[in-house]
Amino acid sequence: MTKYVYLFKEGNANMRELLGGKGANLAEMTNLGLPVPQGFTVTTEACTRYYTDGKKIDDEIVEQIYAALAETEKIAGKKFGDEENPFLVSVRSGARASMPGMMDTILNLGLTDVSVKGLAKKTNNPHFAYDAYRRFIAMFSDVVMEIPKSKFEDVLDEFKEKKGVKFDRDLTADDLMAVVERFKAIYKEAMGVDFPQDPKVQLMEAVKAVFRSWDNPRAIYYRRMNDIPGDWGTAVNVQSMVFGNMGETSGTGVAFTRNPATGEKKLYGEYLLNAQGEDVVAGIRTPSPISELQNQMPDVYKQFVDIAGKLEAHYRDMQDMEYTIEEGKLYMLQTRNGKRTAAAALKIAVDLVDEGVLSEKEAVLKVEPKQLDSLLHPNFDAAALKAAPVIAKGLPASPGAGAGAIYFTADEAAKHGKNKEKVILVRKETTPEDIEGMDFSQAILTVFGGMTSHAAVVARGMGRAAVVGCGDLKINEEAKTVTVNGKTYHEGDMISVDGSTGNVYDGLIPTVEASISGDFARLMGWADAVRTLKVRTNADTPRDTKQAVKFGAEGIGLCRTEHMFFEASRIAAVREMILADTKEQREKALAKILPMQQGDFEAMYKALEGRPMTVRYLDPPLHEFVPHLDMEDEIAELAKNLGRTVEEVKAKITALHESNPMMGHRGCRLAVTYPEIAEMQTRAVMQAAINVRKECGYDIVPEIMIPLVGSKKELAFVKKIVVDTIEKIFAEQGTTMEYHIGTMIEIPRAAVTADEIAEEAEFFSFGTNDLTQMTFGFSRDDAGKFLDSYYENKIFESDPFARLDQDGVGKLVKMAAKLGRETRPNIKLGICGEHGGDPSTIEFCHNVGLNYVSCSPFRVPIARLAAAHAAIKAEGNK
Amino acid sequence: MTKYVYLFKEGNANMRELLGGKGANLAEMTNLGLPVPQGFTVTTEACTRYYTDGKKIDDEIVEQIYAALAETEKIAGKKFGDEENPFLVSVRSGARASMPGMMDTILNLGLTDVSVKGLAKKTNNPHFAYDAYRRFIAMFSDVVMEIPKSKFEDVLDEFKEKKGVKFDRDLTADDLMAVVERFKAIYKEAMGVDFPQDPKVQLMEAVKAVFRSWDNPRAIYYRRMNDIPGDWGTAVNVQSMVFGNMGETSGTGVAFTRNPATGEKKLYGEYLLNAQGEDVVAGIRTPSPISELQNQMPDVYKQFVDIAGKLEAHYRDMQDMEYTIEEGKLYMLQTRNGKRTAAAALKIAVDLVDEGVLSEKEAVLKVEPKQLDSLLHPNFDAAALKAAPVIAKGLPASPGAGAGAIYFTADEAAKHGKNKEKVILVRKETTPEDIEGMDFSQAILTVFGGMTSHAAVVARGMGRAAVVGCGDLKINEEAKTVTVNGKTYHEGDMISVDGSTGNVYDGLIPTVEASISGDFARLMGWADAVRTLKVRTNADTPRDTKQAVKFGAEGIGLCRTEHMFFEASRIAAVREMILADTKEQREKALAKILPMQQGDFEAMYKALEGRPMTVRYLDPPLHEFVPHLDMEDEIAELAKNLGRTVEEVKAKITALHESNPMMGHRGCRLAVTYPEIAEMQTRAVMQAAINVRKECGYDIVPEIMIPLVGSKKELAFVKKIVVDTIEKIFAEQGTTMEYHIGTMIEIPRAAVTADEIAEEAEFFSFGTNDLTQMTFGFSRDDAGKFLDSYYENKIFESDPFARLDQDGVGKLVKMAAKLGRETRPNIKLGICGEHGGDPSTIEFCHNVGLNYVSCSPFRVPIARLAAAHAAIKAEGNK
Repeated sequence: MTKYVYLFKEGNANMRELLGGKGANLAEMTNLGLPVPQGFTVTTEACTRYYTDGKKIDDEIVEQIYAALAETEKIAGKKFGDEENPFLVSVRSGARASMPGMMDTILNLGLTDVSVKGLAKKTNNPHFAYDAYRRFIAMFSDVVMEIPKSKFEDVLDEFKEKKGVKFDRDLTADDLMAVVERFKAIYKEAMGVDFPQDPKVQLMEAVKAVFRSWDNPRAIYYRRMNDIPGDWGTAVNVQSMVFGNMGETSGTGVAFTRNPATGEKKLYGEYLLNAQGEDVVAGIRTPSPISELQNQMPDVYKQFVDIAGKLEAHYRDMQDMEYTIEEGKLYMLQTRNGKRTAAAALKIAVDLVDEGVLSEKEAVLKVEPKQLDSLLHPNFDAAALKAAPVIAKGLPASPGAGAGAIYFTADEAAKHGKNKEKVILVRKETTPEDIEGMDFSQAILTVFGGMTSHAAVVARGMGRAAVVGCGDLKINEEAKTVTVNGKTYHEGDMISVDGSTGNVYDGLIPTVEASISGDFARLMGWADAVRTLKVRTNADTPRDTKQAVKFGAEGIGLCRTEHMFFEASRIAAVREMILADTKEQREKALAKILPMQQGDFEAMYKALEGRPMTVRYLDPPLHEFVPHLDMEDEIAELAKNLGRTVEEVKAKITALHESNPMMGHRGCRLAVTYPEIAEMQTRAVMQAAINVRKECGYDIVPEIMIPLVGSKKELAFVKKIVVDTIEKIFAEQGTTMEYHIGTMIEIPRAAVTADEIAEEAEFFSFGTNDLTQMTFGFSRDDAGKFLDSYYENKIFESDPFARLDQDGVGKLVKMAAKLGRETRPNIKLGICGEHGGDPSTIEFCHNVGLNYVSCSPFRVPIARLAAAHAAIKAEGNK
Repeated sequence: MTKYVYLFKEGNANMRELLGGKGANLAEMTNLGLPVPQGFTVTTEACTRYYTDGKKIDDEIVEQIYAALAETEKIAGKKFGDEENPFLVSVRSGARASMPGMMDTILNLGLTDVSVKGLAKKTNNPHFAYDAYRRFIAMFSDVVMEIPKSKFEDVLDEFKEKKGVKFDRDLTADDLMAVVERFKAIYKEAMGVDFPQDPKVQLMEAVKAVFRSWDNPRAIYYRRMNDIPGDWGTAVNVQSMVFGNMGETSGTGVAFTRNPATGEKKLYGEYLLNAQGEDVVAGIRTPSPISELQNQMPDVYKQFVDIAGKLEAHYRDMQDMEYTIEEGKLYMLQTRNGKRTAAAALKIAVDLVDEGVLSEKEAVLKVEPKQLDSLLHPNFDAAALKAAPVIAKGLPASPGAGAGAIYFTADEAAKHGKNKEKVILVRKETTPEDIEGMDFSQAILTVFGGMTSHAAVVARGMGRAAVVGCGDLKINEEAKTVTVNGKTYHEGDMISVDGSTGNVYDGLIPTVEASISGDFARLMGWADAVRTLKVRTNADTPRDTKQAVKFGAEGIGLCRTEHMFFEASRIAAVREMILADTKEQREKALAKILPMQQGDFEAMYKALEGRPMTVRYLDPPLHEFVPHLDMEDEIAELAKNLGRTVEEVKAKITALHESNPMMGHRGCRLAVTYPEIAEMQTRAVMQAAINVRKECGYDIVPEIMIPLVGSKKELAFVKKIVVDTIEKIFAEQGTTMEYHIGTMIEIPRAAVTADEIAEEAEFFSFGTNDLTQMTFGFSRDDAGKFLDSYYENKIFESDPFARLDQDGVGKLVKMAAKLGRETRPNIKLGICGEHGGDPSTIEFCHNVGLNYVSCSPFRVPIARLAAAHAAIKAEGNK
């Protein structure tokens, strides 16, 4: 019989997959002898089974839960629903990977009309008992039964107004008893039945709600963003309640063993007296810093510092802990490796090495590659920042610079963000529903909440800049305005937010580039020492090239030559070439383009200072270079320049139209029909290389890449054009130079016939953007229309254009790598699609045995670190 | 050392690959002791080497040629260039597969200013000698040096006019000497050097010309049309000349052992006295039927009949022979299995079985599946034909009915034919350059030429109707008219051509369907007995279904449900569904479509009489069903019908636009976003099946096919919609029915993850049209822009949309079949792309182990025969 339920004392930290992170750590803390309210964990397997059983909990599992409950009652010496000494529990989700705010929690479960009396009697505190009951009814109704929370809040507000008090806690026990009656009535009206008075029924409904919440849209979106498989499921933790809201000797809080924003080695956290955990996380009351606890409860503080030290040493990582003080007694409710900003991650990893806790390799694994992103993007220009008017100040919850147009709902922010607009999400406080809007924002700015509020935690996880608790802001959600110190900003107005200082500025402040130094540089050094995968960059300009080299790029993996064609000064010659009727006309136009393109390559070779560069020949369909048919002015000018009539030019443009341009006349197909284009590009590359070699002495070995190849003969045909041209240049210049000719593998046919293609190609570069399009048979431009349905229905768990589809597209990559090596054992293999900067794809590339990945300049450090992770993990798996 | 040259006596009929068909048969005839002018064959390997050596003939090969030449001179007792007894040869191409008219021939090689005197002296016939010399100069100049033939013809015409004679042969020896001088002058002017006076130089240039001609555009086109690999190369046959033009006891001709048009067992052929072979083939003089030879030269006739019988018995097939009579002595110049019409092929195959010559399986292999095409397309309606006015009569060179618009050049015919216009090519005579235009014509009509003229031979090979030698026609090529008996037809006017009777009719005559009976039926019976691959059809209407069943279809492999949506009476409801804003609106429109679609399926199931049908769910992108944005009237009407504004409708249509519709929102992606469409289609299929079962008692097992699936989860999602709907219907109707749900494999990702997909799919049908598009990454609609360059540059040898690309797309098919069977050993596998009717693809499908192919109704018999060929060949390979 499968064991679906584990008491805390039966588990340990290594059982994370089965018990979830929270459950495994509660078990581990129990084993360490720490003060943990006891309870049990329903396993992730039970969740998976819930779904395969058609969303029901099998009797077998129910029985195991009841047995564990009985055991836990015995430990606590209390009984579920008892009118003398009632047993209450919290029910919380706990997945394998931490998913903050994604899953739902229910506190005070077990309260009924009977047991609330027992609680009042036992604690001698009816106010406390009925406060707990009203909280439980509201929470259960909201989370389990999906009755709108606002219905309950309205009643509470009504009571507070009637009584003329400000806070919930100022209501009397009698008030609360009346509130409870009203809450139960709301429940009955919404559900048609009475609020459940059997605690076991409450418990099973709560467990189901946790299971269900694994598949709510927020959770699905979070998993997609974080590459968490949908079939992992969540565990459920049922734990004896302890109460932080039993008066001024009680309280609850969260703390980190080091500062999660800076990494500073100093206990960091907050607490609220006379409160339950939800009050801290929701950010409604502003908590006190943990250092104050030293004054208020020195013993408890000392005990906590002790436990924190013990946990960090035990887990060898910075810990994020939740605790409750019940009438002066400390309880640990949770510990986990704390989320942290990229800067903190670097500092903590480096410090732990210096403290002798971690090896360098272990430290490298402590920093998530994706996280570096926040360090690599521009910060505010210091001079501009000095001159900028600070309009408000809040808590610096997540570092980084964000500037953009303000929006007041997550939906609006997401909508505009998707349109590539830079947006700032401005909210009173954020909730889990806001997650997509936060993801699409440059920065998040909230009125309420502390450093551990939802907005702060999530923004740090995402690497988004965030300023929270900025009380100067007066938001009018209906009018879509925010007023600060008398000035009103409307939706779409520009502000700048500095998550490192908490400052908010008027207007857009210019930004400057990031650089790698200090802890960052040390950790990257360790990463470079261990990785075997080379990291190149995709760059088409000397500026991008220099940026990438600064970030550690070891060469260019993809130089897209067509990008050089779009400049205003060049497009005329390019259009002349495209609209030519004869080879002669085309060659004349190409002769104008040659010196420009050669100059580009010379500048690139200089910027690379001897590093290699793979040049991809002209790839896009030609119509991308000509004006649209309805751009009358441009066409008229073009006709004039070319000495043609407008009708002739329009006819030419019409002839270039394609039904499916993605699968049209592009890539090497252009070189097959117009060999003179490939000849010109060959001259540009080779002559540039020869010139720069002469001028600077770099030992340049040009790499020429033919795109969109589908068969060996196609590559051979274009290669011959290239080689013949090179031989001519060598003869003309009386010199020679080593060079390599290879191809993109981006057409499924190329992947399955890679053994043949390798007879001609000296290297393969996997163009996984196109390969993904062709392998799935959908175009990136159109897939938006249906991909949302695919995510909603869990057909896709991640965007195949962001994260390589390893089962399908990856299978083709693997096959092509194997076939290519069979023909040419030393063939050089790389990847240059946008996947080249995605950590999970990089791990795949390492395991498949590619030689390098190539990604955008800003992702180069991420790729270096991800390559190191891949190497270390692969070593571990040996 | 490789042997590149074989004397005829060194070879045999089995050395076809090395010696080409002609060379192998010349060797075989030599071995049989038949009167063959001796010579030697330069192998196909020499041709391949010529190309790999960069278009030059290696010294090693030259030496072997000279050695064989010396040997042949010895046999003939003559010497190259001798002024007493000169040796003359013919040089002809001879590929592995017969390529009539594609390759070039040179006669009388060896004549020089010196040897022509020898020939005159030896034959005592200066007229003959100088006639041969002038022919040789013209032919060598044209074929080897590409000097326009017309230059020589003009000189000849000038002489004939000056002398007031009609035929070349009426010129005197002195005239011909003068002609020779003029011809040499033309050569010198064109080439800058004298006409070569060294016979060995002539020979090597001629051999090179034959090699070169392997790669001329006509040859490349013919190979593509006939699936002949470009790397086979051609052999060259060098043979002692014999002369049919030495007076009235000489002659030359061609003959078939049976009638190549009807298959009748009777010697069939023609000859011309005092002529060389080129005169017969060119069709300039009209030859006599071979039966007349019996009167003119009874001994020669008897000898020929004897030889013909011997050859047919030896080769066990109808022979096509060339012969020459030199001063009363018969020489055999060639024999080969004769090309024949489909009807003749069937009759000959069946007769040879009845005569005890062939087994049934051998007979099946004697009929080329593709050839049946001509028997399966409509013939003229007999009643209409009787009433139609015959405007001219020619030779019935290739049977079948063709009606269409007339064009006077192959280019025009090809151009209009490509646009799906039905065209008739009307020419004085055809030449190899016309081949593409002939291919795109319904029928070919020529003024000159006999039953073995170029037009006749090629048309029969292609299965095109042809009437030749129709002397009543007066063509004016400049005016683009043809006048017949006083009536003038202009380009584009309609005529009808009956290749079975030779009649030409005014206007378009209606046609009737073909049927299978007699020899055809007997042979198909033998084919069905041996094949293991089932043959289904692609049909969307009861009419097509009935036609296919008549042709032997064993069910429907692909019923495209969307075709049912386009009918005028239905499109309104379909558009209402597409333009709906809400699920409710969409369901309302679908409710209107349901009874129509259910009615369709009921009619289909009835037409099938219990045979299986695979129904594919809605596949095309929705914008295909709505009017284009510029169709203002239709949009206005649509808006009115829907109670919407024109702007709203236009906005909806615009929203449906896709950049790459081929890779867009289509196939099962529609069912994912609009499950209600799949629900409606499921109701239509299942309710129809249940009704027809009840009404007719057929044991129907519906096969539901989900298109464009790329992943298992996608299929599972749609399958669940279908299954849930079916369960509902079963519950409603209180009945059940076996059914199968499967998928198209047409997305590369589906092929590489077929093991997973087979967990959900009960059958796979390979949609090789889309699979070819995605695997190559080019769209059928756009590929036309560059595919011509691909053929010209020999990157592609055949159209991957017509003949399955076995190396690339086929590899995916093989992989998917293997993976699918690993998961589900009894999975049913079929193909339903247009490739399903292509014989070479059918052989591939047989070898991969598919269960069935599905093709258009008119290709069903072809597929049945091809499947039989595949089975017999595979048996032979065991």
